[in-house]
Amino acid sequence: MPLVPRTSEEKRKILNRLKRVAGQVHGIEKMVDEDRYCVDILIQLSAIQAALKKISFSVLERHAKSCVTKAVKEGRGEEQINELVNVLKHFK
Amino acid sequence: MPLVPRTSEEKRKILNRLKRVAGQVHGIEKMVDEDRYCVDILIQLSAIQAALKKISFSVLERHAKSCVTKAVKEGRGEEQINELVNVLKHFK
Amino acid sequence: MPLVPRTSEEKRKILNRLKRVAGQVHGIEKMVDEDRYCVDILIQLSAIQAALKKISFSVLERHAKSCVTKAVKEGRGEEQINELVNVLKHFK
Amino acid sequence: MPLVPRTSEEKRKILNRLKRVAGQVHGIEKMVDEDRYCVDILIQLSAIQAALKKISFSVLERHAKSCVTKAVKEGRGEEQINELVNVLKHFK
Repeated sequence: MPLVPRTSEEKRKILNRLKRVAGQVHGIEKMVDEDRYCVDILIQLSAIQAALKKISFSVLERHAKSCVTKAVKEGRGEEQINELVNVLKHFK
Repeated sequence: MPLVPRTSEEKRKILNRLKRVAGQVHGIEKMVDEDRYCVDILIQLSAIQAALKKISFSVLERHAKSCVTKAVKEGRGEEQINELVNVLKHFK
Repeated sequence: MPLVPRTSEEKRKILNRLKRVAGQVHGIEKMVDEDRYCVDILIQLSAIQAALKKISFSVLERHAKSCVTKAVKEGRGEEQINELVNVLKHFK
Repeated sequence: MPLVPRTSEEKRKILNRLKRVAGQVHGIEKMVDEDRYCVDILIQLSAIQAALKKISFSVLERHAKSCVTKAVKEGRGEEQINELVNVLKHFK
């Protein structure tokens, strides 16, 4: 659980964006099925990458402003910041 | 259409990978629904980014070895390489 | 100025890494001058990118653990986190 | 050596851009020395990353249009494309 649980509105927003990404993935499945041109498929793949990056940034920002901030105020900031920086390194 | 149509085996492989990505996206929807910890969600998002990057590289490699190669041999390489480099720039 | 000035040891470490990067850049200038193979040059360019990314992460981590943490404790965390997330978006 | 040697004009262009990057690196050394604000340093680091990416793309494009094209025409395209795709994977 996040240290500061998400509101239903926050959840609704992220879920909508994830549903759109799932739709884009299915769209590419269709393109492959229809043997569409490789470059068109590559452009769609990069569009999904961009959408996922935006979702990641919003999750990251929310985490920093709630969980990390709460931990810092409670004197446990160092540990949370280490965790956050490590996650960022995953997003090469 | 690609200049050199994909075999059914090639299609099957990409479609399987895309289906796995779609499954991962649905997995994250579930995590958000269950209000899972932000960092766990971020790690899953970066796993999908990595999977999409692999799919993109395989589509790119296939395109270079078939369509671009065919175009180069037919004296139309410059145009295809420009197109490919532009697509690469999308994948910041 | 950072909200929490760097120690001379911190400065020395970053300066050493930056000097190494400057040396790598000069190394590539030499490779171009000697008309070295493109792929070898590309590999050196990606090595510099990796070195710069490490430097950026260490500056980012230091900033989060000092300036952002100080601001959060003083009740000005939101503004600093917005600034940090915006900078992260520069590192596509 | 590239399969198709660079012209002096091509060399001049890349060398100028590399010299600018070296200058930017020295600029950041100065910022660290003067204990400038972390976020300003991070922004300069991302500017160098962007400049290096542009240089990499121009080296990549040149390589594809000369060395890879020449190899494809001589029936050795597969090997060169494998090499190129591997290099691209370095640029995560």
